[in-house]
Amino acid sequence: MTQLLRVQNFTVSSDGFGAGEGQSLERPFGHADPMSLMSWAGATASWKMRTEPGGSRGLDDYFIRDYDHNIGAEIMGRNKFGPQRGPWENEEWQGWWGDEPPFHTPVFVMTHHTRPSFTLSDTTFHFVDDDPAKVLEGAKESAQGKDVRVGGGATTIRAFLEADLVDTLHVVVAPSITLGSGARLWESPDELTDRFHLDVVPSPSGVVHHLFWRK
Amino acid sequence: MTQLLRVQNFTVSSDGFGAGEGQSLERPFGHADPMSLMSWAGATASWKMRTEPGGSRGLDDYFIRDYDHNIGAEIMGRNKFGPQRGPWENEEWQGWWGDEPPFHTPVFVMTHHTRPSFTLSDTTFHFVDDDPAKVLEGAKESAQGKDVRVGGGATTIRAFLEADLVDTLHVVVAPSITLGSGARLWESPDELTDRFHLDVVPSPSGVVHHLFWRK
Repeated sequence: MTQLLRVQNFTVSSDGFGAGEGQSLERPFGHADPMSLMSWAGATASWKMRTEPGGSRGLDDYFIRDYDHNIGAEIMGRNKFGPQRGPWENEEWQGWWGDEPPFHTPVFVMTHHTRPSFTLSDTTFHFVDDDPAKVLEGAKESAQGKDVRVGGGATTIRAFLEADLVDTLHVVVAPSITLGSGARLWESPDELTDRFHLDVVPSPSGVVHHLFWRK
Repeated sequence: MTQLLRVQNFTVSSDGFGAGEGQSLERPFGHADPMSLMSWAGATASWKMRTEPGGSRGLDDYFIRDYDHNIGAEIMGRNKFGPQRGPWENEEWQGWWGDEPPFHTPVFVMTHHTRPSFTLSDTTFHFVDDDPAKVLEGAKESAQGKDVRVGGGATTIRAFLEADLVDTLHVVVAPSITLGSGARLWESPDELTDRFHLDVVPSPSGVVHHLFWRK
């Protein structure tokens, strides 16, 4: 059984940024507006943070419900966990993800400053100071045969791409949003087509799904 | 938790037929060639009957891997089970699906001629002589909170549509195939748009995915 390393539902602006500049506790996406960047996802029936019934069950919903399908672990960069930089000054704060984090698997947070693991509901956060290959090795073991998701941000995904460890990527481009600066995934999707097949699928909702898989 | 009734990966010719005329033991799809009708599916990495490694992980693969995602039971017409008509003359023959049927859930075969249930691997076939609403009620109970799939053929899907019991449909149109006669799903997808939203999504592979969900 092949265990894949997958990027799922990662959304970027028309100019290739996954988040803006100036991340803070109040603004996890910096100057970018996450509600606008992720509005395609929020409109689907399967969006877990949906507060009212309803929502689309069209194309976008397939991607949303595939998010955790056969995923056994997530890897994320430290900035997806929280805004602190350098040594942890406040270990009581347990990340942006609340008491019921949406991962439901082990999560490996990449950081040069490790700290003890902790569990919130059915998600356990581990803090690892290793290179991508080593982190992936641990995540695969902990995923018990299932796939591993690289959750982002853009810098973390780029590190795994540079190490040639990614098997599939689903990147959503929001053509109506331009950020100008921030955490960049790419200048253009063409950067990846030497190593990956690419299906470009415009959604009726307006975003464009980019599906890459290894050649 | 809503239990949906879903049609998944049902493939029709450009003129709306799910199978040709003249079904027999040797030709489950009558004069239609199932290999050609389903070639979009056979090209994906997640296609379960794939004999060699490889295959696409692009758009079509999402639909293939969603096939049994959160499905707890299947309903099928008698002709999807086998070619016999009228009273069962040979109960030893246990359907077209082999010793390891690809359903892995209870399957409800609609027929006026019931017979005892039997189990092959992790699939149990039940034979029911009831109207669609009653069959769905039993399938939902047996699905234990998960969704129910209407597997086909076209006549069975139409019966559930006519009873207004279908929540979502994924129908794949193969534009290069014309059948002229057989089991018809529709004259045109427009027949359903009074009751359903519709995303029409052309795949880079050539087929066109039609995603319907209830208004």
